[in-house]
Order: sequence, then structure tokens, then C-alpha cells
Amino acid sequence: MKDTFIKLLKDVDLNEPILIEALPGIGHVGKLVAEHLIHELQAEKFAELYSPSFPPQVFVDENGIIEPMKNEFYYLKSAGVDQRDYIILVGNTQGLSPEGQYDICGAIIDFIDKLGVKSIYTLGGLGTGQHVEKTKVLGAATTKELTKMLEGYEVKLRSADGGIIGASGLLLGLGMSRGMEGVCLMGETPGYFIDADASKAVLKTLINILKLEVDVAKLEERAEETRKMISKAQQMEQEMSDRMHVTPGDEDLRYIG
Amino acid sequence: MKDTFIKLLKDVDLNEPILIEALPGIGHVGKLVAEHLIHELQAEKFAELYSPSFPPQVFVDENGIIEPMKNEFYYLKSAGVDQRDYIILVGNTQGLSPEGQYDICGAIIDFIDKLGVKSIYTLGGLGTGQHVEKTKVLGAATTKELTKMLEGYEVKLRSADGGIIGASGLLLGLGMSRGMEGVCLMGETPGYFIDADASKAVLKTLINILKLEVDVAKLEERAEETRKMISKAQQMEQEMSDRMHVTPGDEDLRYIG
Amino acid sequence: MKDTFIKLLKDVDLNEPILIEALPGIGHVGKLVAEHLIHELQAEKFAELYSPSFPPQVFVDENGIIEPMKNEFYYLKSAGVDQRDYIILVGNTQGLSPEGQYDICGAIIDFIDKLGVKSIYTLGGLGTGQHVEKTKVLGAATTKELTKMLEGYEVKLRSADGGIIGASGLLLGLGMSRGMEGVCLMGETPGYFIDADASKAVLKTLINILKLEVDVAKLEERAEETRKMISKAQQMEQEMSDRMHVTPGDEDLRYIG
Amino acid sequence: MKDTFIKLLKDVDLNEPILIEALPGIGHVGKLVAEHLIHELQAEKFAELYSPSFPPQVFVDENGIIEPMKNEFYYLKSAGVDQRDYIILVGNTQGLSPEGQYDICGAIIDFIDKLGVKSIYTLGGLGTGQHVEKTKVLGAATTKELTKMLEGYEVKLRSADGGIIGASGLLLGLGMSRGMEGVCLMGETPGYFIDADASKAVLKTLINILKLEVDVAKLEERAEETRKMISKAQQMEQEMSDRMHVTPGDEDLRYIG
Repeated sequence: MKDTFIKLLKDVDLNEPILIEALPGIGHVGKLVAEHLIHELQAEKFAELYSPSFPPQVFVDENGIIEPMKNEFYYLKSAGVDQRDYIILVGNTQGLSPEGQYDICGAIIDFIDKLGVKSIYTLGGLGTGQHVEKTKVLGAATTKELTKMLEGYEVKLRSADGGIIGASGLLLGLGMSRGMEGVCLMGETPGYFIDADASKAVLKTLINILKLEVDVAKLEERAEETRKMISKAQQMEQEMSDRMHVTPGDEDLRYIG
Repeated sequence: MKDTFIKLLKDVDLNEPILIEALPGIGHVGKLVAEHLIHELQAEKFAELYSPSFPPQVFVDENGIIEPMKNEFYYLKSAGVDQRDYIILVGNTQGLSPEGQYDICGAIIDFIDKLGVKSIYTLGGLGTGQHVEKTKVLGAATTKELTKMLEGYEVKLRSADGGIIGASGLLLGLGMSRGMEGVCLMGETPGYFIDADASKAVLKTLINILKLEVDVAKLEERAEETRKMISKAQQMEQEMSDRMHVTPGDEDLRYIG
Repeated sequence: MKDTFIKLLKDVDLNEPILIEALPGIGHVGKLVAEHLIHELQAEKFAELYSPSFPPQVFVDENGIIEPMKNEFYYLKSAGVDQRDYIILVGNTQGLSPEGQYDICGAIIDFIDKLGVKSIYTLGGLGTGQHVEKTKVLGAATTKELTKMLEGYEVKLRSADGGIIGASGLLLGLGMSRGMEGVCLMGETPGYFIDADASKAVLKTLINILKLEVDVAKLEERAEETRKMISKAQQMEQEMSDRMHVTPGDEDLRYIG
Repeated sequence: MKDTFIKLLKDVDLNEPILIEALPGIGHVGKLVAEHLIHELQAEKFAELYSPSFPPQVFVDENGIIEPMKNEFYYLKSAGVDQRDYIILVGNTQGLSPEGQYDICGAIIDFIDKLGVKSIYTLGGLGTGQHVEKTKVLGAATTKELTKMLEGYEVKLRSADGGIIGASGLLLGLGMSRGMEGVCLMGETPGYFIDADASKAVLKTLINILKLEVDVAKLEERAEETRKMISKAQQMEQEMSDRMHVTPGDEDLRYIG
């Protein structure tokens, strides 16, 4: 296996869908949001991505059943007030090497470009390494118009104090060269545990912006469930990956997507 | 040399053979089992795999003779009660980089897919890092039916407390996408020495499941022989590789296949 | 995204242009010089380079706007006394892996070869790790004639006390196999901060050699501006990259280009 | 630059030439031997190898002149008593990554296979990490006949106490799959300095075996010269590479070729 490939499970016909990306990252912030959206809005899986740049392993679930490393694409028709379509991207891992990240994100951009995506929202946590009194949502965007829009929703713009590392950054960067625009929303989190508060803050901001109707209260339950169901291995994997992407002692370059 | 390749030494015609994988890993657990099966059942080598993702070196054997890094395929016709064919995969090394592991395991899956394999057994040790009173055999599988079957043979299912790293995990993960099903059997071992007890436990479980008739007693002798014959370099190589695949301080992600 | 590519923004017709390379390196020495030349001589951007060997991330600027990782080519028609054309190569990053550096520098050499480049100047800082009383400019070149020329401009030749690591070295090495000749100019700097003094010394030497007319005084202002504008992330990125390229405790192999 | 390539400087017609490999390694043992042979027997350079798997840098020589990273092939017609032809392989670097080593050694094997090579001698040092009273020459070979031949020349066979890492091992391993046979000769050396004694011991053994007539005494002078001429950078590079290839604290896996 030398190439990243996407296995299409179902043909879909989408109308300029918006991509919401929430691959594993600090505090499972984005992942919880995406899983909540998938469940509440009954999104349907239509494609899977496999890559030789994923970690060379499998996970074992709570019943001893083997689960391969993969990313998954769900879709949602005519959701929200203005009846737009969505693609939600989740998974149990990200690419391991820098070149692998480019390979995988490039394959994702090729795939969503053909599906008509013009707009990307990437979600994640912003690790503070200390207790967070009240979660703020920080943001960055590919255009001035979008940063102004974000300020209208009380998102604090990240000033020039850091980069966005991993899929949450790279998808926006690579998307720009295809004329896609996008936004990254980051919930402040101490990091290193499943943080429902940060997820709730990001979810509220996202559904406000996208005018989606979703029951926010239930996310707390889901976080509890996730805490139980998620294998220790996945948490470890996550922590390993977190540590890998963050420069040690590097307080400001702490965002992982 | 840029590509992994398999050198066919003999054309074989096999009837839905079962793959038994036992590449080097913790405590030489799988390797001892596979070498015992090859010897006792007189399996014949029919192919060799070479890869640029193996360590860039050769071994020197006890007579000063150079031995290249390779994986080897043996076959066995109509073995056991229900007269099935087998392929046994052994070797003196595994892939070094994550991408290399995918490349090699992908090449193996392509090769055995053409030979008609529908079922995979991967064998290994599960390092406990401490003295093991009575070796337990742990297992995981690709389907619910197989996990139930394992429980019928007193295999303890691994619950969601870890991943399976290396060829023993990846072959099962990649095989799933080709419709192959499989099982991983892991013998508890302190690790870092040649563990005949763990091997015996895995061998007993395996031959029970597959209904093979093999003299288990002789395995102890073989372990002793292996201890003497195996070059220090191979042991070191193994330990290096073990350390590489295990996250330091990571008690639960301790399986290496 | 598997391949480095160059996006041509404007067709240019240049007469045996000289390449001036100043990708990020120790003390931002080369980068400040190149940015000063681009601004003062009003060079125009005509191409951008993107690579899967860049770090897998984006930068966020002081307004919360996302900026992808890239290298940029500017051109200058008939500059200086002898009316030669120039290409100036700058960027916010260099390749991360050794193979990535070869891939990117190879793509640059292919590109500038087609544009008629026969001569290359690479600029950088030479980290001393201690306070620098009066910045010396050190140099190395691909031919004996060029080393003599350098001595005529009071450039101290580096004797056999180190290599030139990164794009500043590799572009010269790869250029040689295409019949290009070249020079590397290095300003002594303590390293690890934006060093306008080292930049000024390199700038003066460069414009003396190339007979360019440029206001040197303004470079101090530009350094100040850069200190303010440059995102912390970029500085960190730089430092990470510096540390990566320098062997720890390796006093003499301290040049980064 | 994505591929290793060999630049042919002169067409040569050789009669089943023997390859002598002496790329940089511990104590410059092999390199000194090869340079001595090239000089004394007036071997002529006929090809150069360049690779993206070399370190991404250039060397600066004692006159400030830039030297790219490369391997070089010399040839020798009808040398020695039995009038055989030789190819001598030297260089200022080896491949950096494991995959790079395979890529480069594979390219070398392809090249020499076409030139009719059936027999390979690889030379190197065997680091002892302590003072060496009287240098022993150790050996390993690809066949039983060759190990017996070595014992006839008072070469001590390496028993199963280690691997041969790098080009000296890999060329023999890859050559085996093309029907080439070979020998590795290793001179014991404390390592980490230019060791003329170890080189002299290896040279004497080699010319005894190959029945070459070479003035051994002059090698001492050459070592002195090399000590002066070799750039510090090259020594550092060497040490870095040594450290990279040796597992820390690994007394028995200490051979580098």
C-alpha cells in the first residue's frame, strides 16, 4: 500500500456543500462537535479514506474487535435555515509524518473539490496547559471578510501568535489554492482530556454561524459516553500525536487541529 | 532499490490457504511458534520478500556468513483434520518506518490475496514488563463471530485497552478491506528474552483452533536451540525494534506483532 | 499533494538573470537583505512554490488571516550599473526533511535553469552563539576565480571548517551540475534574533559586488518593522528549523542558509 | 531532484571487474585504503553518483571552494598478478535515511551489474571504543568458500555477534540477489580519528588476497596528509553519521561500513 485512497460507499449529489473537519486533536474538542452533529442531524457516511501515512497499527474496541485506521466522510442534505448541504469529516487518526499530512490533506481537497465544496470550517481545541475558567472560542480565516464575520459572532481573532498545525491548518491552506475559503474555530481547553465544555462552546458558535438547529444540551451526555467507549489506545494515540505536533516548551504554538 | 518485491521460488496451487504470520516481535513468541510449525509439519519455502524499508544492513551468522534482511513464505498442503492448506510468514526483520510497514504489509496482502487467502492468524507476544506466573493467551479479531470462537478456546479478549502495532495489526487491518477475516493471538511475556512458555501457550491455542496435530513438547528444545543460534545482532535488532514501536512509559500500548 | 510545484503568476523574459536566494535562516540575515532589495528596487513577484516537504501547517498573520507555507520568486529588470536582470527568492519556510530539501532545491534549479540563470548568490547568517563586536562577512564559492573576487571585496573565505547546510548550500551544489556558478555570503550573527547589523554587512557586500544602488540606511527601519510584524509562530518555526539543522554542541557546523 | 543518478564521465570496457567499496566510515579505515590504491595504482575516475538521500548540504574545502556531496567510481585495468580489472568506489558521504541507503546501494548494484561485476570487497573499520594494541582484521563473506579463503589469510571470522550496517553490508546483501559474491574486511579501530594503523592492516590483507603490488609504507604519509586536508566538516559529518548508525550503548553492533 503506497497511496492514500478514498473508498466511495455511496454516490452523492450535493449542492455546494460546506466541509466541516474535525479529525482527532487536543481535548477531542472538534471530534465531539462533529460526532454530535452527525448523530443529531442524522448525517450518513458515504466515503472512507485509508492512507499509508496513518500509524502502522489497528485499534481494538471494547469488544475485542479490530478497527482499522481511517478517516470518514458523512453528508447532510439541506440542513439549517438556508438549506445548504454539508460534508462532515471525522476519523480515528491523522497522518503521522509531515509529508503524510500533505498527502492526505491533498487527497481530501481533490475529493471535496469534485463534490463542489467552496467553503471549509475546521474545528479543534487550543491547548492552554492550565485550567480554563470560561472557554473562549478563537478563530482565524482565509479572508478579511470572514475574519469580520467571525468577530460578529464574538469569536476572538488569533493575532500573530501562532500557526495552525495539522489537518485543521493544512486543509485551509491547500484549499486556498483551489479558490476555497475557510475558517478555523478553536475552543480553549486545558488539553489531554475529553473536554465537553470546549466542545459545547465551539458547537454553539458553529451552529450560530451556519444557522443550524441542534440540541446543545445532549453534547454533555455524548462526552460522557465517549469517555467510556473510547479505547485507551485511542487516547494514547491522541496524546502521542499531540506531543508530536507541539514543540516542547512552546507555549504559543500550541494549537493542534 | 526503491520497491518492495516478492521473489517466487516455486509455483504453488493452494486451496483457500490460511495465513499464519509470525514476524519478529516481543519475546520471539510468534517466531518460535511459526518455526516449530514449519519444522514439525515440514512446510516448504516458496517465496521471499525484500524491501527498501527493512533496516539498511545484513546479519552475520555464527559461521561468518552474511544473511540479507528478508521475510519468507512457507506453505503446507492439506494439514490438520479438515485438510486445509496453510501459508506461514516468518523473517528476520520488519519494516522500519511507518510508511515502510504499510508498503510491506500491502505487498503481502496483494500476494496472499492472489493465492486465495481468506483468513489470517497473526501471532505475537504481549509484553507485561514483569514476571508472568502463568501465561495467558489474549486475542482480538475482525468479526464478532471470531471473538466468540476465541472465547470458546479460552482466549481472553483484549478489551479496549490498546492497539496492535506492526505487521500483526496491520495485516489484519489491510486484509479487512479485501474481505479477509482474521485473528491475533498474543502470549503474555515479560518480553526481552526468548520466551518458550509464552510460545507454548500460543501454539497450544493455535493448534486447538486449527485442529492441527503438532508435538508441543519439542518446542522447549527449539527455544534452547534458538537461544544459542540466534545472533546477538538479531536480538539487538529485535530490542531496538521493540523499543521503537512501544511508546516509553506506555503500559497499555505494549503489544508488538 | 505529493509533488513540489511552482505556480507561475506572470510570464517574464529575463536576460541571464542572477539568482539571489534568501530563504529563512539564522538571524533572518538573508531574509532582511532580500526584502530590502525587493522593496527598494521594486521587484515584482512572478511565481510561487508550494511543497509537501514544507511543515504541515499554516501561519496566522497579525489580523487573524491564514497564510500558507510558500517560497516566492521576484524579478528585477536591468538593475545596477551593468544592467543585469535579477531573480530574488524568499519565503516563510524551507523544506523539513533532507529528501524534501533536495526535492525543493531541485525544483528551483530546474525552474531558474529554464529562465537562463548562470549565476547564484545565496545569503545567510553564520551563528557564532556569542556577542559579535563587528560583523564580518564570510564567503565561499564554486570556483577559484570567484573566491579571489570575494577576497577583493574583503570577504573572508571560510576555510575547511564547516559545511553549508540547507538551501544556501544545496542550491549552489545542485547548480554546479548545470554549469551554474555561485557564491554564498554569510553575515556573522549571535543568531536567534532579527539581526539588522549582520544584514547590513551582507547587503553592503552584495551591492558592492553587484554594483547595485540601494539605500542601506533604511534597512534598520525595516528590521524594526519586521520584528513587529513577523508572527511569533514564524520566529518559532525559524528557531525550530535552526535547531533541526544544527548538530547540538557542534560549534563549527553552525551555518544555516 | 527526486532520484539518485550516476553521471558517466567516460565509457569503460572492463573484464569481470572486482568492486572495492570504501565509503566514509569509522576511523576513515576503508577510505584511506581506497585512496591509497587509487593513487598508487593510478586508477581513473569514470563516474559520479548524486542522490537526494545524501545530506542536504555542501562541503567547503580548505580554499573556500564548494564541493557537492557525491560518490565516485574509479577503474583500474589489468592490475595485480592475475591481471584482473577493478572498480573502486569512494565518496564524501553515505545515504542519510534507511530508505536512502537502499536507494543508493540499489543504484550502485544496477550500475556495476551492467559493468560485469561478479565479486565485491567492502572495507571498513570496526569500532572497539578503546585502545587497540595490535589491529586485527575481521571478516565476513557471502559463501562458505569465501569464509574459508579468508581464514587462509589470517582474517578472523566475525561470529554471530553483530550485523554490518550501511553500504558495506547492504552492497553485499543486495549483490547476493544478483549472483554476486563478496567479502567484508574490517580493521579494528578505537574509532573517531583517522586511523592509519587499522588502514594498513586492512590494506595488507586486501593486497595479499587480490595479489596486488602496492607500497604499504606510504600509507602512513597519506594518513597524515588526509588529517590535514580533510575539512573539519567532513570529520563532523562522519561522526554524526557514525553516531546515527550505531545504537547507543550497543557494544556489539558497532560496525559501520
